[in-house]
Amino acid sequence: MNDAIFEIVTIGNELLIGKTLNTNTQWLAKRITELGGFVKRCTSVRDNIKEIGATVNEAIKRGAKWIIICGGLGSTFDDLTLQGVASAVSRPLVLNRRAVALMKRRYSALKEKGIVRIEKMTPHRLKMAMLPKGSKPLMNPAGMAPGVHLKFNQVNIICLPGVPSEMQAIFDENVVPLIRLVIGRRYFYDRSLNVTSIVESELAPLLNRVMHDNPQVYIKSHPKGVEGSSRIELHLTTSAEMLQVAKNRIEKAANEISQYIIKSGGKVEST
Amino acid sequence: MNDAIFEIVTIGNELLIGKTLNTNTQWLAKRITELGGFVKRCTSVRDNIKEIGATVNEAIKRGAKWIIICGGLGSTFDDLTLQGVASAVSRPLVLNRRAVALMKRRYSALKEKGIVRIEKMTPHRLKMAMLPKGSKPLMNPAGMAPGVHLKFNQVNIICLPGVPSEMQAIFDENVVPLIRLVIGRRYFYDRSLNVTSIVESELAPLLNRVMHDNPQVYIKSHPKGVEGSSRIELHLTTSAEMLQVAKNRIEKAANEISQYIIKSGGKVEST
Repeated sequence: MNDAIFEIVTIGNELLIGKTLNTNTQWLAKRITELGGFVKRCTSVRDNIKEIGATVNEAIKRGAKWIIICGGLGSTFDDLTLQGVASAVSRPLVLNRRAVALMKRRYSALKEKGIVRIEKMTPHRLKMAMLPKGSKPLMNPAGMAPGVHLKFNQVNIICLPGVPSEMQAIFDENVVPLIRLVIGRRYFYDRSLNVTSIVESELAPLLNRVMHDNPQVYIKSHPKGVEGSSRIELHLTTSAEMLQVAKNRIEKAANEISQYIIKSGGKVEST
Repeated sequence: MNDAIFEIVTIGNELLIGKTLNTNTQWLAKRITELGGFVKRCTSVRDNIKEIGATVNEAIKRGAKWIIICGGLGSTFDDLTLQGVASAVSRPLVLNRRAVALMKRRYSALKEKGIVRIEKMTPHRLKMAMLPKGSKPLMNPAGMAPGVHLKFNQVNIICLPGVPSEMQAIFDENVVPLIRLVIGRRYFYDRSLNVTSIVESELAPLLNRVMHDNPQVYIKSHPKGVEGSSRIELHLTTSAEMLQVAKNRIEKAANEISQYIIKSGGKVEST
């Protein structure tokens, strides 16, 4: 389970000034959770080498086994992710031949389609192939900048572009198999119950009892509707190595909750 | 300027499993930036007292002068924010009389409207008035749980509910005046330019020159459209004590960029 601790780091001033809504973090958190990973923390920092490096070091110290970094891999001056990662792990940036080959292949394909005129690797473009020493490039099926996989001690550091279509394509094609290899195949299962006609103060001890009897099921309550009207959504989640095991756990806990609530005069509906 | 360093912390498992899109962070980051604040980092953590406490302590150590925490103020068992903050600053949770009074007033109003039947302060409800010692409650015009303001050494710790309408109402009514009091009135100004017909490798040195000559203007490039087609959005931002000063800075930098780009055979459009 320790192998499955993830942190997500998104990079870009546009996130810190509220210009861009951080949909990448939600997409990654959902995907990682479905794969059976445990996302412990998500962080956004600015385009700043020192900040990026500090964030990576802090995540390592907190015990993350996977650091998924998103944004700042492009060719412009404000793309600083790889410099930040390199400084965090004290490795130089070196020209990666496989990354160059991947990019050349991509440029050739774009030239054939008539999208770009030049396929020459300018120094400016080569910046995207300068990876922290010991990294493996991850093929980008939807864009130019390759993703990066760097194993540092026991930590997998993965860098992905910030453009959602590129980030998602690299993750699904090249990161999912890596995660499965390390943490095995795990299944996430969840179910929501809508609870009405019971006051929150009666619900709390009842949920404590169910959580105590079902330690692998996490229950989160989300009050809905007008305050005081006591409509509450209960969200039950678990993950297990077999889907049926996860499902059985959730169904057992959901049944117990439902029985308790009905006994207390409340109403339950599945959503 | 040091007084204006903010960190935003959002709390809730639903964010870490990708169930909920983190719109609160974007809303807060935008508002704080418009007020002239500098958002240095945004963090999301789970409903876990230790994690919440660690996040607050780390933000203090990093030099944040404002920690805006969002989520986990309600009455249910998984609302743990105030316990986390209390542990971070080593203060006990104590029943805050002003918080109780604010909540009673709210319940009375809801009872008059016929929304709730009971206005009694059950122990369960009183949980929302147990604040870290030395805190001030912030009136919630849109819901029950009061916000919290705790001054710890030189750091302003603000806790807001996770329900967007409540978070926004407390922030606008009760936090904006506090921020203005400390950092003064500052103005954020930004402008975007669409650049086409210039290759990125030619744009980079040109932007470096403009940034060097305009150190208070931050320029961020966002490549748009199909890769290799060299459509780039440039986003120029600054903040100043007077709106006209901020505006002039941006206009000066935008003009310089435009002239350079046109000289290089590129095209510029304002958006």
